[in-house]
Amino acid sequence: MLNTENLRDLFLSYLKENHIKRPPEKLYQPVNYIMELGGKRMRPVMLLMAYQLFANEVEKALPAAYAIEMFHNFSLVHDDIMDEAPLRRGKPTVHKAFDMNTGILSGDVMLILAYDYLMKTEVAEKRLELVQLFNAMSIKVCEGQQMDMDFETRSEVSIEEYIRMISYKTAALLAGGMKMGAIIADAGVDNAQLVYEFAWNIGIAFQLQDDILDTYGDPEKFGKKVGGDIVQNKKTYLVLRALELADSVTRTHLTEIMNTPTKDELAKIKTVKGLFNKLNIRREAEYLKNKYQSSAFQALERLDSSEERKAPLIEMASQLIGRDV
Amino acid sequence: MLNTENLRDLFLSYLKENHIKRPPEKLYQPVNYIMELGGKRMRPVMLLMAYQLFANEVEKALPAAYAIEMFHNFSLVHDDIMDEAPLRRGKPTVHKAFDMNTGILSGDVMLILAYDYLMKTEVAEKRLELVQLFNAMSIKVCEGQQMDMDFETRSEVSIEEYIRMISYKTAALLAGGMKMGAIIADAGVDNAQLVYEFAWNIGIAFQLQDDILDTYGDPEKFGKKVGGDIVQNKKTYLVLRALELADSVTRTHLTEIMNTPTKDELAKIKTVKGLFNKLNIRREAEYLKNKYQSSAFQALERLDSSEERKAPLIEMASQLIGRDV
Repeated sequence: MLNTENLRDLFLSYLKENHIKRPPEKLYQPVNYIMELGGKRMRPVMLLMAYQLFANEVEKALPAAYAIEMFHNFSLVHDDIMDEAPLRRGKPTVHKAFDMNTGILSGDVMLILAYDYLMKTEVAEKRLELVQLFNAMSIKVCEGQQMDMDFETRSEVSIEEYIRMISYKTAALLAGGMKMGAIIADAGVDNAQLVYEFAWNIGIAFQLQDDILDTYGDPEKFGKKVGGDIVQNKKTYLVLRALELADSVTRTHLTEIMNTPTKDELAKIKTVKGLFNKLNIRREAEYLKNKYQSSAFQALERLDSSEERKAPLIEMASQLIGRDV
Repeated sequence: MLNTENLRDLFLSYLKENHIKRPPEKLYQPVNYIMELGGKRMRPVMLLMAYQLFANEVEKALPAAYAIEMFHNFSLVHDDIMDEAPLRRGKPTVHKAFDMNTGILSGDVMLILAYDYLMKTEVAEKRLELVQLFNAMSIKVCEGQQMDMDFETRSEVSIEEYIRMISYKTAALLAGGMKMGAIIADAGVDNAQLVYEFAWNIGIAFQLQDDILDTYGDPEKFGKKVGGDIVQNKKTYLVLRALELADSVTRTHLTEIMNTPTKDELAKIKTVKGLFNKLNIRREAEYLKNKYQSSAFQALERLDSSEERKAPLIEMASQLIGRDV
């Protein structure tokens, strides 16, 4: 059984071996660029961990892990175009480093390459199941991205809708990937389903943590600008819960702030944070996050594997969710 | 055995039944829009024809036919963004009717939906083969699109490279789709390969005919503006063959025209057409087109099916390639 660091190294060597060398160069250069830009490789590593819950010879899950990382990067490339984002992991985004058309077309071929790698999975009889799961997963990711864009222009969004959106946009990919690991390891239907539940709940908790960090994070440790969500009037869990808990005066005030353009970003962050604090929103968000985390750990507990094999997943998930505030 | 008109109707009813009704509306409305915008449905109909070469119950090939049409429309949506095309089949393109982000994301989900429909093919054991073929095919389409974009800025393109580009960009999809029809009909490896060869060669001939029509078409019958390729300095077979056949003075002249911006489009078309005529370029293009057409018909002849079942394919192909000049 490989530990987390070894799994990551194993994946990184596979990534290196699969550097695309064939023409047309302008199509594949951006693919290599984004795939080799770094990142924690959380999704492929967790897929490999899911495999290791049930079997050895983790190399068998490498093509699927690569497919998941490829899909994730495809979605980053296209999302960055839609969001007009200039930077990704501190480097120019694909459409900035190359151009928009390159971003669209290279993204497209990455989505196809993800399927292509799925089909390299050694156990032929599993491939169909993987493709089916991959389809359902990636449709959810697109739907989640659309919901996210829809929310920007909608005046009201319920918390239920918000949780569905982040489930689709973030949790589905982690859950789909980890379930693939379980399927390749022949975990059986029930175990694969429990792995899915674990990852689905961890994915939601992860996104809630992201919402919390965006407002309450340590500026030195948080990668992005603290308060960015508030400045952009993003309808995060924090805002939606605040609107739910607030009395009508506070609700009107918060809504007004979010609908009024402002030049003084710091003042806006301070005001909104003040409202959040009055309503104990941080505690509310932590509470919900912990609820999802504990559902995740319950699912993990129930599945047939050893404590030793579950430990790296508990550690990884705790790190993801408990990132410094 | 259904005739061409019946096959098209069958496909159109399937299309209607599969109108997407689920949310998010903004994601799927553009998908329905482009899928229902019309068109000859050449690719799905020819896939169904390929199936009918070898088997009855053509309904079994409908999900794959739908997948091919979905993929084709995905590529139109993204290509139209890249080409900044305002119109498609006389109606606003998706990114014009909606917006660019919608075009990107709805295109993405269409590509996934294509895989999703492939997996609906009834004969489970065939699905893996279909996905594998679909991967290889769609990677070629992306590579062809990239080559086409590369050619715009390259000073020299060989005819061999041009043929490879149109094979990938146009013929691969027709050939992949028709081979799918053959696979679903249990045609056997050799027959499926012959169907592929037929469609591959027809696809190239079809594109050469398109090049010819763009310069020599009847303005009343040709959908687009006659002479558009010349105005845009597109490196079509006509130009590339002219550069190959011309003496050095004419070659320099033609290269100069193509590198000089002009406001008098009609004069430019007239001059270039004059050069083409001196070099008998139209006859050259017809000759090459006929070569591919005859390779196609030879492949069709060799495969195990009845004359009756081959007839609609011969008719359809002849129509596609012999469209009014």
